[in-house]
Amino acid sequence: MADLEFFFDFGSPASYLAATQIDRVANGAEVAWRPMLLGGVFKAAGNASPVMVPAKGRWMFHDLRRWAKRYDVPLRFPDGFPLNTLHVMRGAAALEGKAEFRPYVDAVYGAVFGRGENITEPEVLGRVLGDAGLEPQAIMTAAQDQAVKDRLKATTEEAVKRGVFGAPTIFVGDEMHFGQDRLDFVAEALARG
Amino acid sequence: MADLEFFFDFGSPASYLAATQIDRVANGAEVAWRPMLLGGVFKAAGNASPVMVPAKGRWMFHDLRRWAKRYDVPLRFPDGFPLNTLHVMRGAAALEGKAEFRPYVDAVYGAVFGRGENITEPEVLGRVLGDAGLEPQAIMTAAQDQAVKDRLKATTEEAVKRGVFGAPTIFVGDEMHFGQDRLDFVAEALARG
Repeated sequence: MADLEFFFDFGSPASYLAATQIDRVANGAEVAWRPMLLGGVFKAAGNASPVMVPAKGRWMFHDLRRWAKRYDVPLRFPDGFPLNTLHVMRGAAALEGKAEFRPYVDAVYGAVFGRGENITEPEVLGRVLGDAGLEPQAIMTAAQDQAVKDRLKATTEEAVKRGVFGAPTIFVGDEMHFGQDRLDFVAEALARG
Repeated sequence: MADLEFFFDFGSPASYLAATQIDRVANGAEVAWRPMLLGGVFKAAGNASPVMVPAKGRWMFHDLRRWAKRYDVPLRFPDGFPLNTLHVMRGAAALEGKAEFRPYVDAVYGAVFGRGENITEPEVLGRVLGDAGLEPQAIMTAAQDQAVKDRLKATTEEAVKRGVFGAPTIFVGDEMHFGQDRLDFVAEALARG
């Protein structure tokens, strides 16, 4: 088993911020990237996106900008945010265990929240993946495999069963941490071993 | 105007944790303690206690313990948590601007979340306040004044108007920070002046 499991969805700006920091936090520990469907998690856990509370959404916008500044990473929101990420999440599930996985994740997150691009538009996604040296057509075809769809669903169900209610959620063994603002606790848990 | 405004409710364990740290964070800056009714805030903002999402409540229990350990402060939950804090919040509103305010707040928070005492029981509250050198009877009589009730309601309405949706919420000027886990941002905002 990996030292650290990182459950994420491309629709979550907090997951993007965490993704930019996870290698630093892992500090050489093995990271298992676990793509899950946040919408499915919300539904199963009886949770909802924080932006459903308007005042919370307004605060969060400022809060995420403060974190991005602290991390020194860009943060932009695509037109149409929140995006429907089912298709790109299936792409991630299609690449699990493959060398292309991390370049794909970095390309998609960089496009969505680094530059505010709407990757639900096929031509935008095609260009983004092509620029990253990936094969958009092959990935998006694989994303339609029933086995891939089932795997993504299974990971989502596993997450819910283990107590996940939002994203990002990080496990160090059985210890669960919710939020990109808990990475220091994750680092401490890893240091304890 | 105070350098920092601290909006709180005695029912919120995160507000208790923040209260134990606020003097350190303020580092000499003036703190205005602003008692508000969290239930009223939730209702007006369309928000709800995080424990309404069971998985979130379970995670938060562990998360708050980790923070308490980091802060090196005790954290216990009273039987019957969450408590109805209307009466003790009115007590805080009755003491606003008075020398007894801070001893009262520290006594109530210390009882509720430091030792897990149920201060909705009048004899428990009486003992807790008496032990702190306060006059329980006088405070609880003052808490029934219509002007005190109105003030607490007005502060709650002001909070909502300014964007508050939960507790604790801290303002440095117009900059709003939500949560005991944002105290470092508060310290940075104060340092910027």
